[in-house]
Amino acid sequence: MKYKILVAYNGEPFVGWQLQLTGPSIQGKIEEALFCLLKEKIRVIGSGRTDSGVHALGQVAHFITEKEMGPYACYQLNALLPKEIRILSMEVVPFHFHAQKSAKRKIYHYHLWLDPVVDPFSAPFRLHIRGKFDLKRMGEAAPLFVGTHDFASFANAGTHPKNTIRTLYRLDIVPQVGGVRLEFEGNGFLYKMVRNIVGLLIEVGKGKREIADVPTLIEAKDRRLSASAAPPQALFLMQVHYPDSTSDEKEVCES
Amino acid sequence: MKYKILVAYNGEPFVGWQLQLTGPSIQGKIEEALFCLLKEKIRVIGSGRTDSGVHALGQVAHFITEKEMGPYACYQLNALLPKEIRILSMEVVPFHFHAQKSAKRKIYHYHLWLDPVVDPFSAPFRLHIRGKFDLKRMGEAAPLFVGTHDFASFANAGTHPKNTIRTLYRLDIVPQVGGVRLEFEGNGFLYKMVRNIVGLLIEVGKGKREIADVPTLIEAKDRRLSASAAPPQALFLMQVHYPDSTSDEKEVCES
Repeated sequence: MKYKILVAYNGEPFVGWQLQLTGPSIQGKIEEALFCLLKEKIRVIGSGRTDSGVHALGQVAHFITEKEMGPYACYQLNALLPKEIRILSMEVVPFHFHAQKSAKRKIYHYHLWLDPVVDPFSAPFRLHIRGKFDLKRMGEAAPLFVGTHDFASFANAGTHPKNTIRTLYRLDIVPQVGGVRLEFEGNGFLYKMVRNIVGLLIEVGKGKREIADVPTLIEAKDRRLSASAAPPQALFLMQVHYPDSTSDEKEVCES
Repeated sequence: MKYKILVAYNGEPFVGWQLQLTGPSIQGKIEEALFCLLKEKIRVIGSGRTDSGVHALGQVAHFITEKEMGPYACYQLNALLPKEIRILSMEVVPFHFHAQKSAKRKIYHYHLWLDPVVDPFSAPFRLHIRGKFDLKRMGEAAPLFVGTHDFASFANAGTHPKNTIRTLYRLDIVPQVGGVRLEFEGNGFLYKMVRNIVGLLIEVGKGKREIADVPTLIEAKDRRLSASAAPPQALFLMQVHYPDSTSDEKEVCES
C-alpha cells in the first residue's frame, strides 16, 4: 500500500526536512517512528525539502509498506515522534501518486513583525523588522515577482540547478496581528527562493533598494546581485496541491 | 510619576503573576528588571494575579518612581526580562490610577482543541478534548453563567473570599482553527473561576453533566459540587479595561 501523510512541524530543533549526517531531520524522525511501529525500514519521500529552522503546517510525504496501517496509526506514530512533529492525517493513495513529482502547487507564508515589541508567543515565528519600513514600497515591488521567470538570481548561492524557471502565481501581502505575512503560491520553488525574495523585499521596504531593481535583478540571473536570504524561523510551508487523480480520499486515521 | 504597563507573558515557566517564595514570578521578574534599570526597589501592582501556567497578552500593572523613564524604557526593560515576558507599552497615568482597584472589566480566553491531532505550534496553548464532545450542549450551557451571580460554587476549592458575587457580561464560544475559544468578559473573576467554569462546561459537552446542572450549581454556592478546574495552559488574560479618566493617553515608549 502507498500512504500519503500530512505533516506539521516546528523546524527549530532540526537540520531540515531531509536526512543529514549533521543532526536530526524531520524525514529521519518519521522513518524512525515508522520503523518502531512496523519493524521495517521505510523510506519517506517529502514534497520537497525545507531548510533547517523552516516550519510546516502542510508538508506532504508518501511511503510504501506491505503492512496495513490501522485507524489508530496516526496516533501511534505521533506517540513515537518528538512533540515538534505531528502527523495530521494519513490516507491510502494510488501507486502513481508521488509526493514530490505529483505536486502541482505549493503555498509558503513568511511572517514579518512590524510593531515595536513582539509578544512572547509570536517572537519565535516572526522576523522582527526594526526601524523605518515602507510597507507601500514592498507592496509595489511584490507583484513584480509574479509570473513565469528565470529565478536564477534568487536561487541558493553556491548551488546551480539545471532549470531555474518557475511560475509564481501570487505573492500577496496580508495584514495580520503585529505586521504582515507574505503569501507565496507557485508551481515550485528553488532552494531558498522564498527567503531570497523576502530578503530583497525587505531591502526595498527599508529603502535600501529601488522597486525598479526587481525586474533588473530577475533579468540579471545572477545570485550575487541580490539581497541576503531572510532567516528561516518566520517561514512556513502551508500547503502542497496535487491533481485530484492522485487521491483516493480514503482517510486512514479516524477522528 | 506613576506608570502603567501593558504586559504579555508565556506563564509556563513561572509560579504565576504574584511574588512567591516557591519560584520565579512575572511580578518578581519585572521588579528585578526595574531594579536593574533604575537602581531602586519598586513594587509592581498588577490588575490581578494569574495562576501558575496561565498566559497573558494584555495584563496591566502600575508602579511609581521618582525617576523619569525615557522613550526607550520599554526596550531597556525587555532587554533585562526573560524572553517569556514582554512589556508591550508604557504610559504615564494620573496618581488616582490603580491597576487593580481601577479595573472595570477583564477579558479572558480559554482555548479548546477538538480536532483529532493538535499541530505542534498550538499544542502548548490548547486543551485537547479527546473523544465525543457535543459543542451544541456546551453552547446551550454557557449563556446560563452570564449575569450577576454568587459564583461561590466556582471559587477556588479551599479559599473563602468574603464577596463571591461577580457579573459576567458575556461567555461567547467562538470557532477557530482546530476547535473553539471561550471568551469571558466580566467585572472581575474569583481565583480559578474561569478554569472552574470551563471544567464544568467540558463535563456538559462530554455528557457527564446536564445543562440544567448549571443553574442548580450556581444556586448551591458549594464548590465541592462542581467539576475540577480546567488546566492552566489554555487560559489567556486578554484585556483589562479602565475608565477613561485613568488614562493620560501619553505613551512613553516610542514606536
